[in-house]
Amino acid sequence: MHSFKSLQRRINLAFTDTAFMHEPVQLYEPIAYTLDFGGKRLRPVLVLMACDFFGGDIDKAVFPAMGVEIFHNFTLLHDDIMDHALLRRGRDTVHQKWGTNAAILSGDTMFVLAYEYVAKTDPELLPMVLNLFNDTARKVCEGQQYDMNFETQHDVTIDDYMRMIRLKTAVLIACSLKLGALLANADQVHAEKIYEFGIELGMAFQLQDDFLDAFGDSKKFGKTIGGDIAAYKKTFLFLKALELARGDTLIKLTNYFFNKEINGEQKIAETIDIYKQLKVDEITRIQIEHHHQKALEILQSLPFEAEMTTEIIGLMQEMLGRER
Amino acid sequence: MHSFKSLQRRINLAFTDTAFMHEPVQLYEPIAYTLDFGGKRLRPVLVLMACDFFGGDIDKAVFPAMGVEIFHNFTLLHDDIMDHALLRRGRDTVHQKWGTNAAILSGDTMFVLAYEYVAKTDPELLPMVLNLFNDTARKVCEGQQYDMNFETQHDVTIDDYMRMIRLKTAVLIACSLKLGALLANADQVHAEKIYEFGIELGMAFQLQDDFLDAFGDSKKFGKTIGGDIAAYKKTFLFLKALELARGDTLIKLTNYFFNKEINGEQKIAETIDIYKQLKVDEITRIQIEHHHQKALEILQSLPFEAEMTTEIIGLMQEMLGRER
Repeated sequence: MHSFKSLQRRINLAFTDTAFMHEPVQLYEPIAYTLDFGGKRLRPVLVLMACDFFGGDIDKAVFPAMGVEIFHNFTLLHDDIMDHALLRRGRDTVHQKWGTNAAILSGDTMFVLAYEYVAKTDPELLPMVLNLFNDTARKVCEGQQYDMNFETQHDVTIDDYMRMIRLKTAVLIACSLKLGALLANADQVHAEKIYEFGIELGMAFQLQDDFLDAFGDSKKFGKTIGGDIAAYKKTFLFLKALELARGDTLIKLTNYFFNKEINGEQKIAETIDIYKQLKVDEITRIQIEHHHQKALEILQSLPFEAEMTTEIIGLMQEMLGRER
Repeated sequence: MHSFKSLQRRINLAFTDTAFMHEPVQLYEPIAYTLDFGGKRLRPVLVLMACDFFGGDIDKAVFPAMGVEIFHNFTLLHDDIMDHALLRRGRDTVHQKWGTNAAILSGDTMFVLAYEYVAKTDPELLPMVLNLFNDTARKVCEGQQYDMNFETQHDVTIDDYMRMIRLKTAVLIACSLKLGALLANADQVHAEKIYEFGIELGMAFQLQDDFLDAFGDSKKFGKTIGGDIAAYKKTFLFLKALELARGDTLIKLTNYFFNKEINGEQKIAETIDIYKQLKVDEITRIQIEHHHQKALEILQSLPFEAEMTTEIIGLMQEMLGRER
C-alpha cells in the first residue's frame, strides 16, 4: 500500500518530469506556467490511491491521473477569465498576465492535453474511462454555468446551491476516485460506491471551504476572511442565513447582498455576526458532518484493508480540517 | 455508393433530429443556436464519404461525423471571441448575443460534446479514432495561435503562412477523411494517403478563400470584397505581394498594412490593383493548382471505383470553384 504522501510525491515528480513547453511558445507558455506551479495535486492523488487500494498498478494510472489534474487546471484557467480574477495561488492569473485571448486558447489546448493524458490507458478500458471523463467534464461546465447564473438570480435555494457544488466540485473528486477504480479493474458496484463516496467527500469539502471563508483562521487558511462575502457569493452560509433571518436582520443581510454600493470590512464583520446570531456556523458544521458521515458509511462498505481505510480517513481529516 | 448530396442530407437530418437543448438553458441555448444553423456541413460529409468509399457502413460514422462538425463549430465560436467578430453566417456571434462568458463556457461544453459524439464508435476503433481527434484538435489550436501571432508579427514568411493554414484549416479536412477511412477499417496506408489528400485539398481550399476575398464575384461569393485587406490580414496574397513589391509600390503596400489609420474602399481597390500589377492573382492560382494537382495525384493512387473518383473530383470543383 502506498501512502497519500508517497503518491503525492509520485504525481509531483510526473509533473516536474514533463516538458509542457512546445511551439508556438505563446500557446504553451501559459500552460507550462499553470501546470508547473504544483499545489496539492489532490485529484490525481485520489486517482492513484483508488487504483492502488483496489489492487491496481499505479504505474498505469499516472498518465490518466495527470489528465484529471490538467483538466482541473483548465477549468480554473477559464473560470478565472469569467470571474475576472486577478490572482490564483498568489500569482497573476493567465488572462491577467497574457490577456484574454491567450487564456481562452491556452485553456482549450489544455483541455485537449487532458484528453491526451486520460487516453493513455489500456485500450480495453478506454471506452469506460472516456465515458466517465466526458460525463464529468460536461457536468463541471454545467456547474460553472449554474454558479454564474447565481450572480444575477435572486431566488437561489439551498437545493440549487447543493446541485451547483455537486456539479462544479464534487463530481470531479468522485470521478478521480472512480477512474482509479476502473484502472484497477474494480467491479462496477465498487466503482459506483467509491464515486458516491467521492460525491459526499466533495460536498463536505466545498461546504468546509464556504465555512472557512467566514470562520477560518486567516493565518492557517492562507486566505483573507470574508472573501465570499465581499464578492457577493451566494454560498451555503448566506443562503441559510437568508432562509432564517427575520425583521431587521433580514433587511440588513439583504441590503448587504443586493446593494453593491456597500462593501468593506464592516460589512464582512457584521455579516459574520449575523451568521453567528442565526447559528449558521453550527448549521454548516452539521451539514458538513452529515456528508462526512455518509462518506464514512460508504467507505465501510468498500473492500479495503484496515490500514487503507485509516489512510483514507486521515486524508479526509486533512481535506476537511484545513483550519486546524 | 452514396452521392455527396445524399450524404449531406443524411448529416443535416442527423442534426435536425438531435435536441441540443438541456438544462441549464443559459449553457445550451448558444450551443443549439450554433448547431441548428446548418451550413454546408462539409467536414462531416467528408467523414461519411470516406467511410462509404472505403466500403464502411455509414450508419456507424454518423455520430463521429457529427463530433467533427461540433468541434469545427466550437473552434469558430471561440475564434469569434478572439477576433471580436460580430457576425457569423449573417447572424450575431454567440459572444455578441450572450456575452463573452457564455461564449467561453458554451464553447467548452461543445468541445466536450464533440468528444462525446466522436467516442460513439466501435470500442476496438476508439483508441485510433481518439488519437487522431486529439492530434487534430491540438494542431487546430496551434494554427489559431500562429494566426493570432501574425497580427503583431512583422516578419511573417510565406512558409509561416503555409504552416498556419495547414494547422488551422487543412488538418481538420484531412482528419475528417481519415476518420471515415478508419471507421471503414481501411488499411493504414490508405488512411494516411487520404489524410495527405485532405491536406492538399485543405490548402487549396484556404488559398482559394484568400483569392476570392480579393478577386471573387461578391454577388456569388456572398461576402464583401476586400474583407481580409480591411482587416489587415496577412494572407498569401499580401505576403506574396510584399515579397515582390519594390520602390513606391512597396512603400504604398507597407503603408496600407502597417498604418492602421488608413482604411476604406480606396485602400481596398488600390491594394487589389497592386496585387494585379504584381501578378499575385496568377501566382495564387498557380499555387492553388499546385495543391489541386497533388491532391488529384494522391486520389489516383487510392483504391476507389471510377464513379467514386468522379464524385470526389466533382466535390473538389465545388470546393475550389465557388466564384463560378
